Amino acid sequence: MPAHEVQVRVRYAETDKMGLVYYGNYFTYFEVGRTDLLRRVGMPYSQLEAEGIYFPVVDAQCKYLGAARYEDLLTVRTWISNVRRTRLEFSYEIRRDGDQALVAAGVTTLVCMNKDFKPIEIPERLRELVTAELGGCGNPGPARTR
Amino acid sequence: MPAHEVQVRVRYAETDKMGLVYYGNYFTYFEVGRTDLLRRVGMPYSQLEAEGIYFPVVDAQCKYLGAARYEDLLTVRTWISNVRRTRLEFSYEIRRDGDQALVAAGVTTLVCMNKDFKPIEIPERLRELVTAELGGCGNPGPARTR
Amino acid sequence: MPAHEVQVRVRYAETDKMGLVYYGNYFTYFEVGRTDLLRRVGMPYSQLEAEGIYFPVVDAQCKYLGAARYEDLLTVRTWISNVRRTRLEFSYEIRRDGDQALVAAGVTTLVCMNKDFKPIEIPERLRELVTAELGGCGNPGPARTR
Amino acid sequence: MPAHEVQVRVRYAETDKMGLVYYGNYFTYFEVGRTDLLRRVGMPYSQLEAEGIYFPVVDAQCKYLGAARYEDLLTVRTWISNVRRTRLEFSYEIRRDGDQALVAAGVTTLVCMNKDFKPIEIPERLRELVTAELGGCGNPGPARTR
Repeated sequence: MPAHEVQVRVRYAETDKMGLVYYGNYFTYFEVGRTDLLRRVGMPYSQLEAEGIYFPVVDAQCKYLGAARYEDLLTVRTWISNVRRTRLEFSYEIRRDGDQALVAAGVTTLVCMNKDFKPIEIPERLRELVTAELGGCGNPGPARTR
Repeated sequence: MPAHEVQVRVRYAETDKMGLVYYGNYFTYFEVGRTDLLRRVGMPYSQLEAEGIYFPVVDAQCKYLGAARYEDLLTVRTWISNVRRTRLEFSYEIRRDGDQALVAAGVTTLVCMNKDFKPIEIPERLRELVTAELGGCGNPGPARTR
Repeated sequence: MPAHEVQVRVRYAETDKMGLVYYGNYFTYFEVGRTDLLRRVGMPYSQLEAEGIYFPVVDAQCKYLGAARYEDLLTVRTWISNVRRTRLEFSYEIRRDGDQALVAAGVTTLVCMNKDFKPIEIPERLRELVTAELGGCGNPGPARTR
Repeated sequence: MPAHEVQVRVRYAETDKMGLVYYGNYFTYFEVGRTDLLRRVGMPYSQLEAEGIYFPVVDAQCKYLGAARYEDLLTVRTWISNVRRTRLEFSYEIRRDGDQALVAAGVTTLVCMNKDFKPIEIPERLRELVTAELGGCGNPGPARTR
């Protein structure tokens, strides 16, 4: 089962004076991948929040392995790497189109919370959807092995 | 009566591959000036929102007159340039410290809304505070003359 | 001749505590439209910069006419609204997919500069390409009439 | 020897629809702390880049431990937690003013590179300055113990 993939084109706004994508902006690309995965499995995150279910990030990591520049087309691969009672872990790999060079790899952990920001169990129908996605990456890549 | 002034130091994140502050980020500096002005006159914007009063921006303009670079210390001058029944207009000038070169000048118009995003009259105590600030800029500068 | 269109999906990162897209981020969407237009007419902006030709923005305006929210799919329509010796003017309209509501409309003016940031004439082959695009919007919309 | 501290006030632009600081923006706060530390020890990062020495981030991590909201005043504590031949590690803690609640803690690793983005040894005078700062945190906090 393949990881989910979505493309992003690097915006000028996302570069910095070094001429590369600013390191903090990779976490936005991760969010694009995460949002896309949830929408594709049938559970858009905007819908979850509309129902009073929030998934704030409690841990985020990124390794920067290559350079991404303005107008580069990048592919963000996202997969669910762990499901626990109240937590979801997403893993990511970002590659440049063309040479397929690995630019960045990362992991984020999110906690399921109600609208008062108290941790709650992941709702059953979401758990089923994400568990079906678990291990959904044929070629785990460096982010997976941490 | 002088305009309100607040300093910001240019962050690496705010630069782009041209080596300058990205044009869209000046609107964030304007927001810093606006937030600072409201807090100093005794009506923090966070408190207004806590009371269900919102001021979304309906019009924003910026003229870019000079260059701001990473680590530059900038002074944002902000003043209330117009008060209407439901609208507030803020004007801004951004200068580099040191040579005092004018880097950017702009204007934003905000509409007072309730939590359902319907336009409402500016609350009386806020109107009094901002009217007292009106014309509060000794040296209006280019942004003012538009 | 139609304006150029490109889609963007609103990212969580681009929203603010009001639940809407932060006003400054529309200028990033304008950049996405501008970048896309130049690439489609055969003159990617990254290539122009690689040749030492820069187009910093000297004036930017945006009118906010509707609300855009997280996961909304937006269409950015971009057209060249004026070509002068050293300046290009781009106009933009942003509509929500689905109801086609106009969310924002704006104009930016860019000056052609060399790598020392001195204004220069727009290179002939670029002038030809953008002049061919001039007036390229069948239905000009509000941004056009300013 | 105390860690370096610098304050940031949360901007509206930095919040997201959850009403909190967007998770990726903490890496900008880390950059503010890092920039401030280097400037205070007498080696502004803008000066290093002007001399052709770059420090791209190769690894970044953040744990999110509390909530930061619009207009909150935050203190970013930054210290050098490791110095190697070509690498510098910075650690960070971000606390809310007032209740001193720990909001976030993180670590970034930066590699010294020349202008062709090849790793090089950290220049001697910089090494001396940062080594003097090493272990400069009396109360290492959670970020340190990873």
